[in-house]
Amino acid sequence: MHTLKLKLKKQSYDIIIGSDILRCLGKYIQKLDIGKDAYVITNTFLKNKYGDQLKRGLVKSGFTVRFKTVPDTEKSKSIETATSLIKDITAYDKKKKIFVVAFGGGVIGDLAGFTASIYKRGIPYIQVPTTLLAQVDSSIGGKTAVDLSQGKNLVGAFYQPRLVFTDAALLKSLDARQVRAGLAEVIKYGIIKDARLFAFMENKHKDILSLKPGALEFIITRCSKIKADIVGLDEREEKGIRTILNFGHTIGHAIEAAAGFKGYNHGEAIALGMLIASDISRKLGLANDATTQRIENLIMAVGLPAKIKKISFAGIIKMHYHDKKFIGSQNRFVLIKDIGKTRIVKNIPLKIISQALRERI
Amino acid sequence: MHTLKLKLKKQSYDIIIGSDILRCLGKYIQKLDIGKDAYVITNTFLKNKYGDQLKRGLVKSGFTVRFKTVPDTEKSKSIETATSLIKDITAYDKKKKIFVVAFGGGVIGDLAGFTASIYKRGIPYIQVPTTLLAQVDSSIGGKTAVDLSQGKNLVGAFYQPRLVFTDAALLKSLDARQVRAGLAEVIKYGIIKDARLFAFMENKHKDILSLKPGALEFIITRCSKIKADIVGLDEREEKGIRTILNFGHTIGHAIEAAAGFKGYNHGEAIALGMLIASDISRKLGLANDATTQRIENLIMAVGLPAKIKKISFAGIIKMHYHDKKFIGSQNRFVLIKDIGKTRIVKNIPLKIISQALRERI
Repeated sequence: MHTLKLKLKKQSYDIIIGSDILRCLGKYIQKLDIGKDAYVITNTFLKNKYGDQLKRGLVKSGFTVRFKTVPDTEKSKSIETATSLIKDITAYDKKKKIFVVAFGGGVIGDLAGFTASIYKRGIPYIQVPTTLLAQVDSSIGGKTAVDLSQGKNLVGAFYQPRLVFTDAALLKSLDARQVRAGLAEVIKYGIIKDARLFAFMENKHKDILSLKPGALEFIITRCSKIKADIVGLDEREEKGIRTILNFGHTIGHAIEAAAGFKGYNHGEAIALGMLIASDISRKLGLANDATTQRIENLIMAVGLPAKIKKISFAGIIKMHYHDKKFIGSQNRFVLIKDIGKTRIVKNIPLKIISQALRERI
Repeated sequence: MHTLKLKLKKQSYDIIIGSDILRCLGKYIQKLDIGKDAYVITNTFLKNKYGDQLKRGLVKSGFTVRFKTVPDTEKSKSIETATSLIKDITAYDKKKKIFVVAFGGGVIGDLAGFTASIYKRGIPYIQVPTTLLAQVDSSIGGKTAVDLSQGKNLVGAFYQPRLVFTDAALLKSLDARQVRAGLAEVIKYGIIKDARLFAFMENKHKDILSLKPGALEFIITRCSKIKADIVGLDEREEKGIRTILNFGHTIGHAIEAAAGFKGYNHGEAIALGMLIASDISRKLGLANDATTQRIENLIMAVGLPAKIKKISFAGIIKMHYHDKKFIGSQNRFVLIKDIGKTRIVKNIPLKIISQALRERI
C-alpha cells in the first residue's frame, strides 16, 4: 500500500493506493473527522458488484451509508442530475454531518465532486475511482464539472477531495478497452515526466494488461505522484504548470469532438493526439525518430489505435479551431524533446499540423 | 471616496465607497486586468435608470458591455436562472475574456456571484451593490448562493469578487422601507463591533434617512470595514469569527420564515431578532437596562418595528428549531454585554427565549 500527499496551501490530502483495500476505506475516512453520514454516488453495476463490501467497511467504522445511483453515461454529467442529487441530499442531511463518496469513473467523480462543491457552499467528498483513467488522472486535482449542451465541462468548480482512495483490484470490473483507455494517460505521464515509467510500460505491458496487482500499483503510484506534484504547484491552472498534462489533448479533443464523442473514447483519442504531437515534434526537429518510434511502438503494444478511421481531416481541423487551448488566435501545443521532456510551442504553422494529421488518416 | 482592502491569503480585493462614482467604474476594473467583456446582470428598473451611465463609463475604458436582466425577486435565485445565464454567457464568450458585473441588491449579487463561480470553474466578477443591505453586507465576503424549494441558500459557493464598488448615490432609487431594512444591518454592526458607529446613528439618523451623502458614506465605510476585517480573518466561516455577524439572525430568520418570507423583509426581521437577543442578554444579566433601551430607541427612531405582528409564537418557535445555527441539538446565540461587545452563549433555556419572544408579540 502506498500513501502519497497532495500538498496544497489550504488543505492537503492523501492519495492511498493499494489492491483489495476497499474494506479499509472507513478507517481512512474516520481519521479525517468529516462527519458520520456517507452519501455514496455510484452506478448500478458498481453498486451491485461492490456495494455490500463498501458498505460493510464503512458501517464497521461507524458510518451510516446511503447509496445513490446515476446512469454511467456522459449524460449524467448535467446540472439537472447535480440538482436532483442535492435535493436528495437535503432529505438525508438531518443536522448530522454528511459527506459525499464518489464511487465510480470520471463521470461520477466529476458529477459527485461538483455536487459536493455547491451543496451548502461545499461539503467534504472522497474520491474512490474505479477506472484506470480516473485512478491516474481525474480523481486527483479537484477539477469538477458538468456539461452543457453548449460544451463539455462548461460548468464546474475547483474543489479538492479530502481523500483519494484507489483500489487497483477494482479494475477487474473493466473491459479491456477501458483498461487500454486508461493506459493512454499512463503513457502520457511517462512521456511528459517519467522515462522510468515509460520504460516500465515497455517491459511490463503484458503484466499490466492482465491486471497483475504489482504492476498496476506501480503505474498508478507513479502517475498519481506526477499528477499530485503538478496540481500542488498549480492548483487552479493559473501558472501554466498544469499545461503539460494536456500533451496529446489538443488534437485528441478535436478527434473526440469530430467523432461526436462516439467513435473514440477519451484514451483512444488521446493516444492519437499524442502520436500527432510527437510527429509534430519530430517535424520541428525537437524530437528524433527513435523517440517517436518508441512512443508509437508502446501505443500499439497496449492495443491503442495509431491511425484515425472514419473521421475526416476537415472535421478534425474545424474542431481544433474551437479548442479552448487556443489563446486568442494562437494555437499552443505541448511537444516533446525526449521521453520525459516537454516543451510548450505556440503558433505552429497549420501546414505542419495538417501534414502530421494527414499521415495518421 | 474611500478605499478599503479585504485582505485574503489568495486574492485580496478593494472595496471602493463614494457618491456619484458610477462613471468611474471602468477605470477601477481596468486596473484588475480581468478581461474586456463586461456581462452585467441586473434588473429592468436599474437598467432603465442607470444602464446608460454604467455603460458609458465602461465603454470609455474600453470594455464591451452586455446587459442581462432578471426579475428582482427571490425566485430569481434559482439553479434554473443561473443555468440560463450561463447558457447566455457561452454565446457571448467568444475567445475573449469575459467577466460578470453584479449590478443590484442581494438577490442579484448572490445569483451573479454563484453564476460566475461555476462558469468554466470560475470567472471574475465585480459587485456593484445598489441597496443599503447589499452595500454594507452581502456584496462583501464572497458568500454566493441560490435557493432550492427545500430551503434558502442551499446551493452556493464561497467565491470572492475582484472588486466591490459602492456608490451611495444609488440608494436614491430605494423606497424608504428598503433603506430602513439596510439600516437594521448598520445598527447590527454598531452593536456588535462599533460603539462610535452606534452613537453616530443615534445622532444622525435623520441625515441618514434623508440620504445625505456624507452620512451615508460614513456608515457604509464603517460597516464595510467591519465586514471586511471579519471576512479576512475567517473567509469560510470555519473559525467561528464570522459568527458574531449573526447577531439578531437566530430569531430574525425564524420570524422571516414563520411569516413565509412575506410579512417582514430581512432587515425588519433582523431588527426584531436583535431586540429579542438584547432582551435575552438583559434577562441573563449580561447587558444592563440602559444598553438595551438605547438599542430599542435607535431601532424605533429609524422606523424599524419593535413588536411582532400577525405571526404566532408557536410558528416562530417551530422555525427556530429548524435553524441551521443549532449545532446538534444545542441552540447558540450571539448576545451582547454592551454596545460594541458580544458574547456567544450556547444552550439558553427555552423558557428564557420564550419569555423574551412573548414580550415582543
